[in-house]
Amino acid sequence: MAITLSSGFKMPIMGLGVWRVEGNAMKDLVVNAIKLGYRHFDCAADYKNEAEVGEALEFAFQQGLVKREDLFITTKLWNSDHGHVLEACKDSLMKLKLDYLDLYLVHFPIATKHTGVGTTDSALDANGVLEIDTTISLETTWHAMEELVSMGLVRSIGISNFDIFLTRDCLAYSKVKPSVNQIETHPYFQREDLVKFCQKHGICVTAHTPLGGAAANTEWFGSVSCLEDPVLVDLAKNYDKTPAQLALRWGIQRKTVVIPKTSKFERLKENIEVFDFDISAEDMDTIKRMDRKLRTNQPAVFWGIDLFA
Amino acid sequence: MAITLSSGFKMPIMGLGVWRVEGNAMKDLVVNAIKLGYRHFDCAADYKNEAEVGEALEFAFQQGLVKREDLFITTKLWNSDHGHVLEACKDSLMKLKLDYLDLYLVHFPIATKHTGVGTTDSALDANGVLEIDTTISLETTWHAMEELVSMGLVRSIGISNFDIFLTRDCLAYSKVKPSVNQIETHPYFQREDLVKFCQKHGICVTAHTPLGGAAANTEWFGSVSCLEDPVLVDLAKNYDKTPAQLALRWGIQRKTVVIPKTSKFERLKENIEVFDFDISAEDMDTIKRMDRKLRTNQPAVFWGIDLFA
Repeated sequence: MAITLSSGFKMPIMGLGVWRVEGNAMKDLVVNAIKLGYRHFDCAADYKNEAEVGEALEFAFQQGLVKREDLFITTKLWNSDHGHVLEACKDSLMKLKLDYLDLYLVHFPIATKHTGVGTTDSALDANGVLEIDTTISLETTWHAMEELVSMGLVRSIGISNFDIFLTRDCLAYSKVKPSVNQIETHPYFQREDLVKFCQKHGICVTAHTPLGGAAANTEWFGSVSCLEDPVLVDLAKNYDKTPAQLALRWGIQRKTVVIPKTSKFERLKENIEVFDFDISAEDMDTIKRMDRKLRTNQPAVFWGIDLFA
Repeated sequence: MAITLSSGFKMPIMGLGVWRVEGNAMKDLVVNAIKLGYRHFDCAADYKNEAEVGEALEFAFQQGLVKREDLFITTKLWNSDHGHVLEACKDSLMKLKLDYLDLYLVHFPIATKHTGVGTTDSALDANGVLEIDTTISLETTWHAMEELVSMGLVRSIGISNFDIFLTRDCLAYSKVKPSVNQIETHPYFQREDLVKFCQKHGICVTAHTPLGGAAANTEWFGSVSCLEDPVLVDLAKNYDKTPAQLALRWGIQRKTVVIPKTSKFERLKENIEVFDFDISAEDMDTIKRMDRKLRTNQPAVFWGIDLFA
């Protein structure tokens, strides 16, 4: 199942996010994912594992498991590279061992001090506050993204973690419209207005953290996971599915692309087995009422700055 | 007491906000405020009472209560006028009966469908969702604001309701830097990172809703007011002041400009009597711990769109 982007290219509605996948587990994970039917991989320079993804992909191509044109590969421009879009994209392509990306996203709507292409550490000032670059506007960054499309290095371009204000502004200053806005959204953080806004304006929404962060975000950010919510647990039983499968299916039925992350084989299998059932309209409404407006990803913890207040 | 803006002009640290002041009460309010020592008035096209402010000011000038150059008058560009900045500014000046503004702010970081200069009703689509203008970028709007400074119609320009992402972007695309960012902030919604960010980059923060919305926002948005918080109530007793005076003094001591709104004479007097005491460092910390990250202003209610999720 795929969604046709405004660029005209198709994006598989289910993908594998590789944030926090450790280097030596990557090859097995990617190979297993491909065998299970995953065709969409969501990477980022900031995940610091593009080289491992690249090796895994090269291995998969060599083994004849899949061809390049069957895959949809996304990666993201880091905050410190807004003034170096072409070099950053080439660096990602080199690490991924690819000659084009299916999708390149502006990871966050903020430019920070450049720390060298390929290095994604955030520069903090003496007070532990993120060092912002106040010379490069998001429009300047976006026009450099558009250039990548003209050059054939990237098929579709998009944004990530943009709210309605920033997304509207991007629509206004862009020549090539953003194909995608990748945002955190899950049953506890539904952001119905932002999702509807993007979809109304031809922007496909990709749901990062589609399982509500689960154990990882509970550990990192102390957030509560929707997967343990009795409502979701009960509903899942009715469908003979897991709460995770229900959360993902809910995301798909609201026409968002979902990119759950896991490094466990059983979870990898569980997450993609969501195409053999439909959640009823009534149960979609039940899940809709679970919304807590609860953001679980808080980069603030690492940046010394609360970007969301 | 005044703060020197990046434009070089001074802005009184205490002002009177006139949102929701009804037409026939305006003259008494403005005249009484001037007599009590207010020199700073915060208006907006969207408050739909600029003409009443204008008449009150004209009366005050005629009575010799105060001179134009002693006052600091702010008004704001409405969302539907982003493509008509010069006309909108001239319309506000005409209504206010002034030949220059001390400060002109972009009211919200969003351009909506133009509905005619001077009309500030928000166009909603068939689904009740705000009709966005996707052709005018915030940078385009800002450059038109900069023109007003060159033309001498406006002394300082600024932004309002901009978060860190949008503020950083404005710093990047602006030739004339924003002097002010007017945002909701009060003891229950302190936004320390945004306030610090603005101040670090030479942008004066004006605190709208500095009393946490009090009764009005409780009625309109169902929000909780910090003025009834036992911590603030107890602290206020120690200083022989009211909770409102403590909240305002706290705002002033964190170097934000405060613009409480009231239409009651006693409150007008109470709100400005905050220059005869200091909150101790220890009590400033106590108030700091009151933060609930609680936004009380929710234009979403009227726009059919949650702009803050």
